[in-house]
Amino acid sequence: MSQRYKVVIEYDGTDFAGFQVQPHQRTVESVLTKVVNQIAKNPQPAIQVFGSGRTDAGVHAHGQVIHFDLPKPIPAPNLRLALNSMFPLDMAVVSVEEVDDTFHARFSTHGKRYRYIVSNTPFVDPFKRNYTGHYKYPLNLDRMQTASRDLIGEHDFTSFVASGSQAKSNIRMIYDVQVHERPEDHEFVFDFYGSGFLYNQVRIMVALLLQIGNGRRPVNDIPRVLAAKDREEARETAPASGLYLESVLYDKHVSDENNN
Amino acid sequence: MSQRYKVVIEYDGTDFAGFQVQPHQRTVESVLTKVVNQIAKNPQPAIQVFGSGRTDAGVHAHGQVIHFDLPKPIPAPNLRLALNSMFPLDMAVVSVEEVDDTFHARFSTHGKRYRYIVSNTPFVDPFKRNYTGHYKYPLNLDRMQTASRDLIGEHDFTSFVASGSQAKSNIRMIYDVQVHERPEDHEFVFDFYGSGFLYNQVRIMVALLLQIGNGRRPVNDIPRVLAAKDREEARETAPASGLYLESVLYDKHVSDENNN
Repeated sequence: MSQRYKVVIEYDGTDFAGFQVQPHQRTVESVLTKVVNQIAKNPQPAIQVFGSGRTDAGVHAHGQVIHFDLPKPIPAPNLRLALNSMFPLDMAVVSVEEVDDTFHARFSTHGKRYRYIVSNTPFVDPFKRNYTGHYKYPLNLDRMQTASRDLIGEHDFTSFVASGSQAKSNIRMIYDVQVHERPEDHEFVFDFYGSGFLYNQVRIMVALLLQIGNGRRPVNDIPRVLAAKDREEARETAPASGLYLESVLYDKHVSDENNN
Repeated sequence: MSQRYKVVIEYDGTDFAGFQVQPHQRTVESVLTKVVNQIAKNPQPAIQVFGSGRTDAGVHAHGQVIHFDLPKPIPAPNLRLALNSMFPLDMAVVSVEEVDDTFHARFSTHGKRYRYIVSNTPFVDPFKRNYTGHYKYPLNLDRMQTASRDLIGEHDFTSFVASGSQAKSNIRMIYDVQVHERPEDHEFVFDFYGSGFLYNQVRIMVALLLQIGNGRRPVNDIPRVLAAKDREEARETAPASGLYLESVLYDKHVSDENNN
């Protein structure tokens, strides 16, 4: 009897060419697939690993969720040790859980939380270059907080999706957006909680909030951009380095949000 | 009339092969020399850059100090902007100051402050792998604090110098050592303040304090190791990734310790 496992992982996205397998590239999925099959002693057919969704090159995760089936079950604590021992140093296990076969890392998702961190200094801080997005112009917190509320709710996010998206619908529900400042670190932090997000949607929303925060756009510009349903209206995309997949929520797993 | 400049810089050591120029390697000194000569429009003879001392591959700096002479003076604020604009993203200017020709980044030093950060978790945190040293065994703060006091004072640090050191004397003065814990981050922080340090001395001292903190050595082992004057007594060297050159102190510049 095979056993399905839900595994929460974190990774530093700097040295990965994103999540999804790509030829001749080091991706999160390719590393995971290799490690899981090694732990299972390379069965035939090979074990497939399913993620909650892709992250782009340079995007980080504190709470990415994957699932896979092991033909021969391993107790969860042992599997956790085995994974951590075989993972490269830029990837780690947060938790391992035995789940039943109805659980699917991608199709059972109920919502996702993303965080975006902006470093707001005249020049790039050497120690933050891979872990924040850099914005050198002045930012007004009030303006960004006010504007961010226009993103909440169910909207057609066609203006906020990158070309290359294969989504059938661009309608998504955003439950909450929070913007706060860490003055001592010269950082602004954007937290998004939604049913799901389109390709590059969070990074496009952040870029637009930054333009509003700097006064390049009116504070009430978001309803107009949403109504336009035209990617040309938003244009800019904040860099991947500031984005973190914080947690993925599931119908029957709402209690464990995997935040750490 | 040429003008001498004292420049404080910070860098993420991860992608540098240390400070000193080496053939076919990306080093801090080689990047600095190239940038400074470009700003001065590549004069002949080329401008030489002098650092307070070397840092190894992977070692970071918040307050490394360099000096150089520009044949045609540039106002300090303008030079700061020019340097920051031309530096790669893993290097930045902290301050620029015009100094007289008696100042020398290496020979005028009065003391140095180094910090070492240890991440004390069962497995490496992906986001800390390049910015801390990892130690997976339990550590006792009291033991390390008690033992660290035996390092303070003037000692012959022959037992704490790596092979390859070209120092004429292994006698150094340590003014202060502080060890504290950041429980919420699972980190231990070691701060060293001394007249100067030998090659790998800080990393060897940290490795020994970790062994004491874990109980592998008696808490009063340091006087014995110092007296032995034998590198075989200390043996281990903590990884470069946890080490930060915090500030360099100069006789006439004691007030600006460049801490940030």
